[in-house]
This record gives sequence, C-alpha cells and structure tokens, in this order.
Amino acid sequence: MELLTVRMQIPDGANLILGQAHFIKTAEDLYEAVVNTVPGAKFAVAFNEASGPCLVRVESNDESNDHELRRAAVANAQALAAGHAFVLLVRNAYPINLLGRVRDCFEVCAIFCATANPVEAILAQTGQGRAILGIVDGSSPKGVETEDDTKKRHEFVRKIGYKLEC
Amino acid sequence: MELLTVRMQIPDGANLILGQAHFIKTAEDLYEAVVNTVPGAKFAVAFNEASGPCLVRVESNDESNDHELRRAAVANAQALAAGHAFVLLVRNAYPINLLGRVRDCFEVCAIFCATANPVEAILAQTGQGRAILGIVDGSSPKGVETEDDTKKRHEFVRKIGYKLEC
Amino acid sequence: MELLTVRMQIPDGANLILGQAHFIKTAEDLYEAVVNTVPGAKFAVAFNEASGPCLVRVESNDESNDHELRRAAVANAQALAAGHAFVLLVRNAYPINLLGRVRDCFEVCAIFCATANPVEAILAQTGQGRAILGIVDGSSPKGVETEDDTKKRHEFVRKIGYKLEC
Amino acid sequence: MELLTVRMQIPDGANLILGQAHFIKTAEDLYEAVVNTVPGAKFAVAFNEASGPCLVRVESNDESNDHELRRAAVANAQALAAGHAFVLLVRNAYPINLLGRVRDCFEVCAIFCATANPVEAILAQTGQGRAILGIVDGSSPKGVETEDDTKKRHEFVRKIGYKLEC
Amino acid sequence: MELLTVRMQIPDGANLILGQAHFIKTAEDLYEAVVNTVPGAKFAVAFNEASGPCLVRVESNDESNDHELRRAAVANAQALAAGHAFVLLVRNAYPINLLGRVRDCFEVCAIFCATANPVEAILAQTGQGRAILGIVDGSSPKGVETEDDTKKRHEFVRKIGYKLEC
Amino acid sequence: MELLTVRMQIPDGANLILGQAHFIKTAEDLYEAVVNTVPGAKFAVAFNEASGPCLVRVESNDESNDHELRRAAVANAQALAAGHAFVLLVRNAYPINLLGRVRDCFEVCAIFCATANPVEAILAQTGQGRAILGIVDGSSPKGVETEDDTKKRHEFVRKIGYKLEC
Repeated sequence: MELLTVRMQIPDGANLILGQAHFIKTAEDLYEAVVNTVPGAKFAVAFNEASGPCLVRVESNDESNDHELRRAAVANAQALAAGHAFVLLVRNAYPINLLGRVRDCFEVCAIFCATANPVEAILAQTGQGRAILGIVDGSSPKGVETEDDTKKRHEFVRKIGYKLEC
Repeated sequence: MELLTVRMQIPDGANLILGQAHFIKTAEDLYEAVVNTVPGAKFAVAFNEASGPCLVRVESNDESNDHELRRAAVANAQALAAGHAFVLLVRNAYPINLLGRVRDCFEVCAIFCATANPVEAILAQTGQGRAILGIVDGSSPKGVETEDDTKKRHEFVRKIGYKLEC
Repeated sequence: MELLTVRMQIPDGANLILGQAHFIKTAEDLYEAVVNTVPGAKFAVAFNEASGPCLVRVESNDESNDHELRRAAVANAQALAAGHAFVLLVRNAYPINLLGRVRDCFEVCAIFCATANPVEAILAQTGQGRAILGIVDGSSPKGVETEDDTKKRHEFVRKIGYKLEC
Repeated sequence: MELLTVRMQIPDGANLILGQAHFIKTAEDLYEAVVNTVPGAKFAVAFNEASGPCLVRVESNDESNDHELRRAAVANAQALAAGHAFVLLVRNAYPINLLGRVRDCFEVCAIFCATANPVEAILAQTGQGRAILGIVDGSSPKGVETEDDTKKRHEFVRKIGYKLEC
Repeated sequence: MELLTVRMQIPDGANLILGQAHFIKTAEDLYEAVVNTVPGAKFAVAFNEASGPCLVRVESNDESNDHELRRAAVANAQALAAGHAFVLLVRNAYPINLLGRVRDCFEVCAIFCATANPVEAILAQTGQGRAILGIVDGSSPKGVETEDDTKKRHEFVRKIGYKLEC
Repeated sequence: MELLTVRMQIPDGANLILGQAHFIKTAEDLYEAVVNTVPGAKFAVAFNEASGPCLVRVESNDESNDHELRRAAVANAQALAAGHAFVLLVRNAYPINLLGRVRDCFEVCAIFCATANPVEAILAQTGQGRAILGIVDGSSPKGVETEDDTKKRHEFVRKIGYKLEC
C-alpha cells in the first residue's frame, strides 16, 4: 500500500463537496438534489463507477465558461481515482444550502468535506484501487478566538443575514 | 502506528454497509431499521463493542445457509478490529433501500461504504487499538463516459425501473 | 506527508463527538442543536476555522469547574489542528440523544465518532495542513458474544430503560 | 361551505397513504421514492393538479389485474377532488417501510393517514374547491389494553420479526 | 356526520403532542424515541388501535403520582376516539426537544400540535368512527408585536439559553 | 362551534407555506431555515403566539415594496387567528426548495399546504379560539391525464430542468 496526496481543482467562486456514494444513479440523483434546492445554482457532479466499465459518470447544468465546472469535477474524480467517490462543484450556491439534500440522497454514504478552501485528499493506493483516507481542508488553526473575536464572529454572521441581528 | 489492509468477505449476492456507531444497542437498532424497511431482507449486523467485555455484538434474521451472513459479518468485524465499527451484510435488499434508515439510526456516526464490490479496508493499528482510515471500494475509473455512455446509463437506470422511462 | 497520532482529552463523565463541518457559524449552530435537544446538558463545541484568521471558534454553556469542557474542547481542536474539524464535549447528555441533531446541523459534513472511550485520532500532516484519517475509539474486540452474552445485552439495554422490558 | 364524507377504495391486500403535496412532479418523485425503497412493491400514485389543466396526474408500476391499483388511486383522487392531494396505494410493502421516504419527498407537505383499514375522508366543499379536513381511519377504540393485552402486543410485534424476541 | 369538540387533559407541567400514526408498534417506538432523546423525561403515550380488538395501546415510564400521565394519555385517547390517533404527554422535556424524533418514528404520519396550552380537538363522528379535523391550540392572537415586543422576544429566547446572547 | 372560511392573501409572485408550530422561537428559526437554504429568497414569516400576550410574531428580510410580504403574512396570520399557526410567504424561491428545511425546523408540527394557488382555509371557531381544519388549495381536478398529457408533464418537468432530459 502506498499513501499519496492529491490536490483538488476548485474553480474561482466555486465550492467543493466531496463524498462517497454507490451506484451510477448517484450522478442523476445529486443533479436533482441541487436543482431542486437552489434556483440558479450552476454545478457539475462526477461519480466514480467502481465496477464493470468503471467510467466517471457526470451530470452538469453548467454550459458556460467552456464547461469549467464539468471539466474540473471530472479532473478531480480522476485524480482521486477512488471507487464510488463523488465530486460536486457548485457556483451561486453554498454548501450550507445543499449539505442536507446531498446527505439525504438515496445513494450517499458519506461527505468528506464542503469547502471553498484549498483541498488535498490523502489517499491509499493498493493493488485493487484507491481509498480516500482524509481531507486537508484549508489551513490549521493559528490561535484561539478572544472574546473580541467571538463578538466579531457573531456580528459577521448577522451582518450577512444568516442569523438575526438583535 | 502501523498501517494495514484487510479484505472484507462479501457472500454471493450480498451487499455490505460498513460504518461507525457507538453503544451496544446499535446491533438491535440496526436490526429493526432493516426489518422495518424491506420486507424479506435477509441480513446480519455485527458491532464491535469497544469497552468492558469488548465483544462483537451480533443480530441476524438469516437462518439459512449455515448462517453464512452472520458468520461473514462477524468475521469482517473481527478482521477490522476497530472499536465501534459495524458491518451490515444484506441479501434481498440493496443499499439504496436502506442507507437513509441506517444513517438515521440513533447510534450511527458514519457510513464508510455501501457496495457489492470487492472491499479492502485501510486500517491503522496503534498500541490502543485500530482505526478505519478508508475503504477501497471496487476499482479505480478507467475513463470518462462519452455522450453515448451517458445515454446508456440513463436507459439502464430506467430499464430496471428506478427512474421513469419517458 | 507525515502520519501522527493525537490523543483526545475527555473530561470525567463527558462524551466526545468529533466531526467535520464548514463555516464559522458551525459553533453557534451546534450550540443551538444541543441546547434545543437535551435540557440540562452542559457542553462545549470548538471548531477549527480554516481560512483567514484561522481561529478555533468556541461556544459553551458550561460555566462550572474552571470551564473544563471549554478548555478541553479547545485543546482537542488545537491538537487535531485539522481545518474545519469540530469537537463537541458534553455532560448530562449522551451521544444517542444528540447525534441526529448534530448530523442535521446545516454545516456538518461528517461525524467521525461519538464515545466516552479513550480516543486517538490518526492524522496526516502535509505542507498545507492536517487531515483526520481515522479514529481509534476504545479497544479492539476480544471475542464474539455467546448466546448468554446476547441475552445479557438485551437485558442490560432494557434495564436502563432504552428498550421496553417485555 | 358544505361538509361531505367520501369513502376511499382500498383494493384487497393494499395499503393507502393519503397526503398533501404540490407541483405535478410529485407523481414522479413519489414513484421513485417507492421504487427505491422496497424492491417488488407494486403501487400507484395519483396527484390532483390544482391549477391550469387540473388533471389527476398518475404514475404506477402495477401492470397486473387490469391496473387495479392505478384505477383505484385515480378513483380516490377524483372522489376527494381536493387540490394538491395525493393518493398512494401499495401492495407488497407496508406503510412502515415507506412513510419516511414519502415524508422526505421534496414536494410533500403532509400525510393524513397510512392504513389498510376502511377510510372515510371528511371534506369541505366551497365555491372554489375542496379541502380534506380529516380522516376516519378504521374504528374507534372499544377499551384499554390490560396487562395481558400489552404482553400479547409485545409478543405479536416480536413474532412477526419487527422487534427482537429476547 | 356530526361535529364535536373534545377538550384534552394536560396535567400540570406536562406538554401534549398529538398525532396520527398506524400499527400498534407505534406505542413502543414512540416510547423508545422519547427515552433515547431526553434523559429524565417522564411520559406516557397512548395509541388508538383501529382494527381487530381496537384497544388503546399504552406505554409509559411514569410511575409517580398515581400514574397521572398514563391515565391522562389514555383518557385523551378515549375522548378523541379517532382510529390511529396517538397522544404523548411528557414532563421534564419540551416538544422542541422531541418533535424531530417523533416525526421520524417509522409509524408516524402527522403531528397535529405540540403544546402546553389548553387544547380542544375538533372531531367528526360518522357511522364508522371518528376523525380529528383540527386543534384549537391556546388562544387567538390579540395583536401584532411592536418593535419593542420583537426586541423582548429576542431577549427572552436568549435569556433562557435557546439562542446565544451576543 | 362555528365553521368559517378565510381566504389567504398571496402577493404576486409569492408562494405560501402554511403550518402549525409551537413556541415564539418559531419565527426566528424559520427565518434561519429560509436564509440558509436559498440565497436571495425574500420572505416573511408570521407566527401566532397562543398564550400570554398572544401576539403575531414576525420576521422578514423583505424591505422592498412597502413590506408587502410582511404585511400579507401578518394579515394572513390574523385572518386565520388560530393559535400556533404560522404563515410563510416567499419570493425568489419555491416550496420545493424549502419544504424539507421547514419540516425539520425544531418547532414545526405540521405543514398544511405549499402553493401559489388561491387558498381558502377552513376554520372552526370555539369559545376558546380557532382551529385550522383544512385548506382549499387551488381547484378540483377536471379530468384524468391521458398518455399524451403524461408525456407532456414529463417533458415540462425536464424542460424546466428539474429532471434530466434523456
């Protein structure tokens, strides 16, 4: 067994949701999950079929920018090369909008990360194939928030409208 | 710390759901989750108690074939040897039928995979015990689907009745 | 890439839920999830912000014991040092009460473990940061339950009132 | 406003799930919900479109018996005549298997009942249309269970395998 | 058909959750739902079996006060006399803690109300049995909140710890 | 007891979700549910407090058009006058995007309807207060879809992107 690190491509302004599922219907069901939740979201989902033809299965509603989201989702799925992994790249929507629906998708087992940060996937390569072991999602903490930082955090969340100012 | 690879036993016609839970009631609650969802499903669940007597806790409704599902579930749980891991082997039902109910089980933390493919678990062994790091689920992708492959995928999912033909 | 093992601090009588989320609002939303589920629960949640100031974000309702839960949650989050990881330490409540609500929290991707056992996290350190690869949760199994053990398990779960005695 | 009572047709061996949804996609999404949950279930779903052409929208996988389930689902939807109501009739599956998936269907607002009992719907007729006010589901209670009845109830649920005998 | 009004008994300090389910296992599954969510909750659940012996099925963990919760739950179920209705009375827990778990119970179709207010159920009586049509839950509004009322509402919710003061 | 009919105000381009909840925190939690799900949604929620001051509790993020959504939500809540009822009016989002999140809100018991159709609520007035008995949501069905109508329905759902064209 060999361990390796693979960096995900995250196009400008996109967020990445990375998970484990099963069955080729995943691509279509995740497509519906996103389209039915956030009107106007642009996205691509790629799923690694893990038996038979073993193809990267792809759905996308993003026709712009030379299919940038589709190409990046496929590139990420191929770079991971782990069976039954899926990659969802989305613009005009945020993971907070979508995680519940992705989690409830009939085929989804696990979600590894949801982020716009730089992402490295830690993988194991065996004779059979690849496993996702973990995700480096952004940077390590540099300190602990002070009372003032806490206050600013609360204010920020309210300023962007996610909690009520009161 | 030592890394090791363990292959799961998946009896013919069975699917494997592998996850992390807590508390010995997991075995009984997963039993109920399956029985209450798919009439006729035959299955066994094994859960690794991780404190006190540290026994593999097992429930099964499969009385046939020399208790093949029960024996394989126990063998897998013992081969993993990771505290609080659970193994569910099921026939006459598919992961797509069951994942939501397994996920919603009061004790379940995570689902690593759901598959009928060959499975290798990547584990870490420490002085204390074992951790599941990741799962090699089937094979790595060999290519990206073409438009024709996409069409066939859509047709296949509809032919088996999982989506409407229209 | 370097692999390392980090032991979690679990104060007496506390349970640990360890997971992956995103966005600094996680700390506040997990606070609400616990407070709205188990009256009287005392707890602290620490979340590793993974971009910008990269601070450990903390919420707690535990004012007693020199803020033991808060300090331990922060110490665990710093020891993990994995971006977007969260640590929830809780007293007067059990993971079985809370897992569903934690899982359904808008920002939560994954739950690695829920336990009062000794816990070692297996981590990968890269130039960018850290990934949680897996969790050693308590001890490995020492054997398989006998019919008598099964009977005692069923009786124990009923004696503590979690299933009906009948 | 006029109140009226309408009796539902429940074919032999079928169960009825009656609810409120919105949008003509309901019919297709409920079809997928059932097919993805219980292999072998035979069913029909009818949904009352409540604007535009105002047609009863129907999906079914039941080709047998002169389309008995489809015809009964449509007849029930027409007899109710309440906008956005849906009727699901199912054989080879039980409501307990399906309620969670029906409830989680993107379009579903409410479930009025799930039963194999005789059913009367109580309706209000106004100049605009009809509202479902409530459901007479089977018979009123004739008494309170004794300790012996409780024991028999527990035994029955275990005898049919829905809870563990222990 | 006759319409009638029935007042629910809500013992001091208790909250009432009133709903529609199916199958006699409801009583046992709701028992588990409560016990597994709020440690220390005292409660009784009564369910109106609607076929065969048509008994009020009851489970309770409340041994105190001459079984006041059990007696009130049964009295309410009998007063409703609607098939497949259930009544949950709980102390030391609040509906906000429990509603999600009650809703996710395998047998539950609908929840009519969750309240500590005076409750009148509006019922229809037919030759077959009874239907719950609606619930008068407390009093009608007397006005609209002013900005000052809104401020006090926000403060109150924070003062009791359900949202963060910030 | 008196029965009456009340027509809901639905501003142009808005959808109405009508339900039953409990506790004044409902207004704030539904606010968060919408804001966290559909970026750009404009909405107002009004909740009928049913004890103490009995005020209509309101939250809204709609500052435009002379607070049209807020005013209509309040007017609807007052017209219903049923304790613990809530009214959600939303623009730039559809019920299909939001129903799951509304349903999962800690305080929500029931959802009566989700619609842009004309809506009449059927209410009962007693000496104590009011109960919502049912909802006339749009019009009654005028016929059953033909095979051609089914085909057009499938095509329409795909044309607007909610299902994949294939």
